[in-house]
This record gives sequence, structure tokens and C-alpha cells, in this order.
Amino acid sequence: MPVETPVMIINLKVYPESMGAPAMELAKLLDETARRTGASIVICPPVTDLFCIQKEVGIPVWAQAADPVEPGSRTGHVTLEMLQNVGAEGLLLNHSERRLQMADIGWLVAKARKLNMDSCVCAADATESKACAAMGPDFIAVEPPELIGGDISVTTANPQIVRKSVEEVRKVNSHVRVLCGAGVKTGKDVRKALELGAHGVLLASGVVKARDKKATLMDLVGGLGR
Amino acid sequence: MPVETPVMIINLKVYPESMGAPAMELAKLLDETARRTGASIVICPPVTDLFCIQKEVGIPVWAQAADPVEPGSRTGHVTLEMLQNVGAEGLLLNHSERRLQMADIGWLVAKARKLNMDSCVCAADATESKACAAMGPDFIAVEPPELIGGDISVTTANPQIVRKSVEEVRKVNSHVRVLCGAGVKTGKDVRKALELGAHGVLLASGVVKARDKKATLMDLVGGLGR
Amino acid sequence: MPVETPVMIINLKVYPESMGAPAMELAKLLDETARRTGASIVICPPVTDLFCIQKEVGIPVWAQAADPVEPGSRTGHVTLEMLQNVGAEGLLLNHSERRLQMADIGWLVAKARKLNMDSCVCAADATESKACAAMGPDFIAVEPPELIGGDISVTTANPQIVRKSVEEVRKVNSHVRVLCGAGVKTGKDVRKALELGAHGVLLASGVVKARDKKATLMDLVGGLGR
Amino acid sequence: MPVETPVMIINLKVYPESMGAPAMELAKLLDETARRTGASIVICPPVTDLFCIQKEVGIPVWAQAADPVEPGSRTGHVTLEMLQNVGAEGLLLNHSERRLQMADIGWLVAKARKLNMDSCVCAADATESKACAAMGPDFIAVEPPELIGGDISVTTANPQIVRKSVEEVRKVNSHVRVLCGAGVKTGKDVRKALELGAHGVLLASGVVKARDKKATLMDLVGGLGR
Repeated sequence: MPVETPVMIINLKVYPESMGAPAMELAKLLDETARRTGASIVICPPVTDLFCIQKEVGIPVWAQAADPVEPGSRTGHVTLEMLQNVGAEGLLLNHSERRLQMADIGWLVAKARKLNMDSCVCAADATESKACAAMGPDFIAVEPPELIGGDISVTTANPQIVRKSVEEVRKVNSHVRVLCGAGVKTGKDVRKALELGAHGVLLASGVVKARDKKATLMDLVGGLGR
Repeated sequence: MPVETPVMIINLKVYPESMGAPAMELAKLLDETARRTGASIVICPPVTDLFCIQKEVGIPVWAQAADPVEPGSRTGHVTLEMLQNVGAEGLLLNHSERRLQMADIGWLVAKARKLNMDSCVCAADATESKACAAMGPDFIAVEPPELIGGDISVTTANPQIVRKSVEEVRKVNSHVRVLCGAGVKTGKDVRKALELGAHGVLLASGVVKARDKKATLMDLVGGLGR
Repeated sequence: MPVETPVMIINLKVYPESMGAPAMELAKLLDETARRTGASIVICPPVTDLFCIQKEVGIPVWAQAADPVEPGSRTGHVTLEMLQNVGAEGLLLNHSERRLQMADIGWLVAKARKLNMDSCVCAADATESKACAAMGPDFIAVEPPELIGGDISVTTANPQIVRKSVEEVRKVNSHVRVLCGAGVKTGKDVRKALELGAHGVLLASGVVKARDKKATLMDLVGGLGR
Repeated sequence: MPVETPVMIINLKVYPESMGAPAMELAKLLDETARRTGASIVICPPVTDLFCIQKEVGIPVWAQAADPVEPGSRTGHVTLEMLQNVGAEGLLLNHSERRLQMADIGWLVAKARKLNMDSCVCAADATESKACAAMGPDFIAVEPPELIGGDISVTTANPQIVRKSVEEVRKVNSHVRVLCGAGVKTGKDVRKALELGAHGVLLASGVVKARDKKATLMDLVGGLGR
């Protein structure tokens, strides 16, 4: 079942509070919010918690990354098959904290498609977004690395990068949907993202580090039009 | 609780049969074998299956690898804290299929000790074994890469590498115990490893790919003296 | 001065015969061939021999690779500035033997342009060629890795990959010229490449390992139409 | 001819002033200083300038790094053979700005010895120094990364790390000589290094960025006892 847009993808990263009980609590809150508001929300837990979280929620659960390898005589790797086996329906790849070789992006996107998993390739600017579009992932998330984890939303700091990414990606492959991220924290930021042509947002600290997670989520979801 | 020796560490790698139901079945067989014979057995499942397997078995569950990073704003990484949180009591590191920078081996060994997790550093020859001993891990597993996954046990193909590793490691740090691996498949191979001075063996395909896993395990465990 | 097309780029790689006297001899032969026939030939020597070769020849001398970093407190790196300082006018990047992260390809292409150096990004297939085109390098060289160093030219084994790359690249950025490589050894292979729409070829072993280099070169150059 | 100790190894790194004319000027100054004072000085220029500098000086010229590969079908790599072919008599390896996998350190040290080239492995602390000693390089240079490029010499900030490295290395392999580096800038720092048991120092910015290079060198050389 394809992910509906506009969508909000929440990357839990590997913060101390991203594993175990607090991660499960956040997962349930995201699930409940999606159910109550009809918002399209995707959660990306740490790989060790994928199985547990996936069993408790109805929203799509994605991995934060995967290794570009087939199952076999390898040690410590994370294959797409392993992820799918514990319920992951998609994956982020090429996050600025986990850059991939170009050849490996192509490999992972193609393999994900074959396994019926969704893929979202992260890109640092409009040029990279355009390049990624050639690989044909389901989503591209443009995130200027210098704004990640910061207090100013990309939609305020650099609206042009979002608009330009949307435009360039459309020219190369109109089936690819563009998200934006970095510093997104409020419903207003989300609304602005959609106005700039994005199909949604990619968030991490804005939710994981929020004091009042429930209120923050309701505000964000409001920006999606829910 | 420190791992007893002689020990048999089983690395499930990421073979197609290393995840889900067959992995759980193997885990239960290992657990049962350990309980019935009193043999010291450690299992290293793929990271996605760590949680499930750890809940079902009494033998120590270790990770196959970890990233040398602290929890924080990182995407797709595997921290020692994440592994410990799902029940891992130790980890392999620097496997020939996942070589690490020297600085990162030291970091992971020190961090594991601090978290009270066991560590086993893989080495390709006696020189590397000696170098690793300086880091003070709990175990060093010497495995000539060219024999990994093959049909001839290191104890037959290159007994000298085992004897020499044991000797060199003892000189540098007498608390570090030496295992050997690569091509180990039978109780006779295990017995030979112990005769050469090793404190146990590291196995993967010899168990995971065995047709009759129960018989294979009983034979191997016999080599440990059980 | 931009490189004229059709062009033949010779990657000397780091074969034993690619350094010192035999490399200089080959460089002079390439230079002489270019002068006598008017063919456009580029040579890519090992980084240690760049300076010497550049001083002796009139054809453009390119580097085989560069690190995506600025000059500064770094050890053992190769910056574009260092290469330009010893006379390199361009560079190959992302060769299948030296794959780069996507972000680094973009960085190097942009930096090369700023320094007035030519860039040729290697790609493994039409999808990668298309992605690379978004970065706007001067050239893209499509080389199926499985044919590199082999006996069958890409133009025979997989003409479709060349035609498709030319077509896809043109759609994304019509200023980018497409070369092809892998297994190219004869004038007939070169002619076929041009017929498929390529603007030239990228060769290595076909020239470096040729017994009669002079005859081989004359044959290849004939394929360029000279 | 083995390098005499106490020795001062100057790593030019890849600063803007480390290439071309200023690099040559510094090389000649180092050469002249060595000749006039009898001090043992080694220079490590950027790889592109190795050939030129080696032709003009009598002091040993080393590389800043090398790739752990044999000559062959590889692109953009730097083999030990290439370095030796342009006159390099030794090399630094595993600098904190260019960390290597443990297996590759062993490979490079062994290959350098076979080619009669000197090797100096950089280490971050006494534990790494000890581990490196097992590989049997000619030198180990202990450099706490947090002090590199700074204003306080390791000999002042952390004399214990030097003393401990000397002691630990001697236990593992008494033929390996220990240098120290990071923040070393004056003759007093050098003298202190020798008092702590080191056989010399590894410097970069302290010389390359010095305003009055001649005076700085004379001061440093005085610390060596010349």
C-alpha cells in the first residue's frame, strides 16, 4: 500500500531516548495521532527496535538505512530482506549522517522497488535532488545539512532550495515526490513546505526532543491540513 | 557473568536462513544443547533478530558488530547502548567481512568494557592478534580470511597460526583469551583447537549451513569436552 | 581550452608499467600521435608522475581521481589545487575502482568548474549516467564494471547501454558529453562508439597492455576518424 | 640507509603553502639546516610534489600516506611502488587525518619493509602505540588528535602519554622507536620529548605555518641537541 501524501516522516535517529520504552511511547503517540486525525505519518525507529514497534503500531514503519548487499556470508550487515522480515515497509537512505556512494543508492532503490518497499533518498540540495530523481525512488527528501538539528526551518532559511528541488525533480521524473527537512518544528513550517510544492516533511529532533510531544504533534499535523 | 571457556561462538551472519523462523529454531537448538550438555555456547544473530532471540534463550546473545559512536544525532547507526538495550551481552568486532579502523577497535573495546559487555576482536593472523591484545578485549578470534567459509579447518590448514596467536597474545596481555575460526566444522576440529592452546572456536557456516544441525552440534560440543 | 571531441581518454591506472620510464614513453607516443593525426587525446597518469609527464607533452594531462577536500590541515590527501599546480587540466572521478559518495561527486564537479578544470564522471549504467548529468560535469563515461579490463568491447556486448546513456544524459543536460569505455581495444570499437552517439572513449588496458602500442594507437585513432 | 635518531619529521600536509614554490623553499631550508647542523630531518611533501622535492634535497623524503594495494588495475591509487619510484624512502601511515583499518596497517608496514622503505605509524594514545608496535614499523608517532594543530605541546599537555607509549612499545617490540607530536613548536618542546624517552618528534603546522621559518628551525634543531 503506497504511502499517502502529504506525509510526515519521523526519523527517530539513535538518540538516547530513541530506544526502548520512550521510543515505544512515541511510536504509540504517532500511531494514535495518525488514527485520530487521518494524517499520513511514517516512523523510522533504530534498527534494534524495528520489530517491537512494528508489532504495536498501524502506521508504516521504515528503516533509517540499509547496507547495499545481498543476504549471504556477511557479518554485521543490514539487508533489505532482514528489514522487511521484521516488518519494515520502506527505508530512508543517503541521510547526510550516512552518505552512500552513488552506485549504492541506485542499487538500494532498485532492490527496494523489487521487494515492494518504499524508498526515500536524502539529498543536500537541488542538484543532488535532481540527480537522485534519476534513480526513481518513491521520495526525495531535501535537507541542507547545515540546518539539520537547528532552530530555523529550511522553509524559512532557504525556501528556494525546496521550490527548486520540486521543480528539478519533476523535470527528471514526475513520479518522484519531494519532501523537505531540517529545522522543521511547527505546523507553520509544514504548511510552508506544502505551499513550496513539497509533498511532506522529514523530521527528527523537532519531535524526538520536543518537551510536549502531544501538543507538538497536533500542531505539526495541523500544518498537513488535518 | 563472564563467558565460560572453552566456548563455542556461533556467528549467524546474514544468510537467508539467518533470520526469522529458521534463526529462532537454530537459537533454540543451541540453547537446548547448552543446557543439556553444559557446553558454553554464544549466539550472534542478525541485529534485527537480536531482541526476539534474546527473549527465548538462556545462552548469551551477542551482536555481530557495532558502530564506534555514541548515541545522538546519527541515522542508521548501531550503538552499543542499542544492542545492550535489546539484551546483547557482548559483540564481535573487526570481522574480516567488517574491518574496522584501529582507533575504532580501541574505542569499541573500551566502551564495551565500561558497559559490562564482552568483546571479541577478530584478527587475520598472529601479528594482528598480538596488536589486538594491546586493546585488552575479552577474546581475540584468529581467522585467516582465505579459509572462512571453506572446507578445511584452520586447525588443519594452519595450526601454526593458532599456536602462534596464543603465544603472542599471552605475552602482551595474559587476560585475553584466544579463539580460532575459519572452516571449523567437526568435534575433531574443536578438539584440535583446544590442543593448540585456543580457549574455543568461532563458527558460522559450519553450523548455519549444516544439513543435520542437531548431529553437527552434538559432534562439535563433544570436541569441547562435553 | 576545452577538450575537443571526439576524444580518446587514456587512463594509465597504476599498473607496474604505468610509472617511470614506460609511462613517459607511452605519454610521448600519445603526444606524437595526437600531433601527427590531429586526434584529440587526453592522458591520465598516476598522480606521482603527473608533473614529469605534463612537462614533456602538449596533450591535456588529467588526474585519475581527487579527494573532495579543500587545502588545509589534512594528511595524504590529493586536492584539486595540488593537481592543477602540477599541470593537470582535468580529472576522472567516480571510476568503478574508486567510487565516490554522491555528495562528493557534486562537490568535485563544482570545484573543478570553478578552477577551470575539466571533469569526467564515470558511471556504471544509463541510470547512473542520467544521475551524473544533473551534476553538470564536462563528460560522463559509461563503463559497465563487469566489462572493464575484458576482451569484449562495451559497444559489442551492450550497445544499448551507450545509446541509452546518450539519450538520458541529453534529456537532463544537453551540454554534457558522453563517452563509453570497458573492453574498447580497436578502431572498430571506437567507430561503433561514435555511431552509438558517444563523443569518444575511455581506455586503459587496451593501450597500456598492448604489445604493439604504436599500431594499436593508429588503429584506435582511425576509429575517431583521423 | 636507516634514519638516524633523534629525528625531526616534518609533515607538510596539504596546506595552500605546502605545494609548488613555497614547499620547495621550505624543503631547501630543511635540507640546508640538516647539512649545517648535522640534525636528522625527514620531509613529507604532498604526493604531487614528491618528485620535484626529492630531486633537490639530500634529506630523506617520505610520503604522507599510501593505499594498501598492489600495482594493477586500479584508478587513482597511490602504491608504495609509485612512491619509491619518485624517490620516497619512507612513509607516514594511519595519521589521525587518514585513519586506516588495522589489517591495512599491517599490510603496509610489511610491504614497506620488503621494499626497504621506512614506516612510521601514527597512534592516538599509549594503547594504540602498543598495538602498532606489534606490527613492527620503524617508528610509531603518538599524537593525541585533540592537540594536533594547537598551541600546547603534547609534551606539556600530556607528558604521561609519551612516557607510557615509550614504555609500552618497548615491552612489545624494542626495535620500534617512538616519536611524539601535536603542538610541538619550540626547541624546548623537542628537548622535553627526548627527556620523556622519545626518539624524536613529528611536526607540521609548527614549521609550515611559522612566520620566521629559519629561526623556528634553528630553535627546534637546538632541542635535538644540534
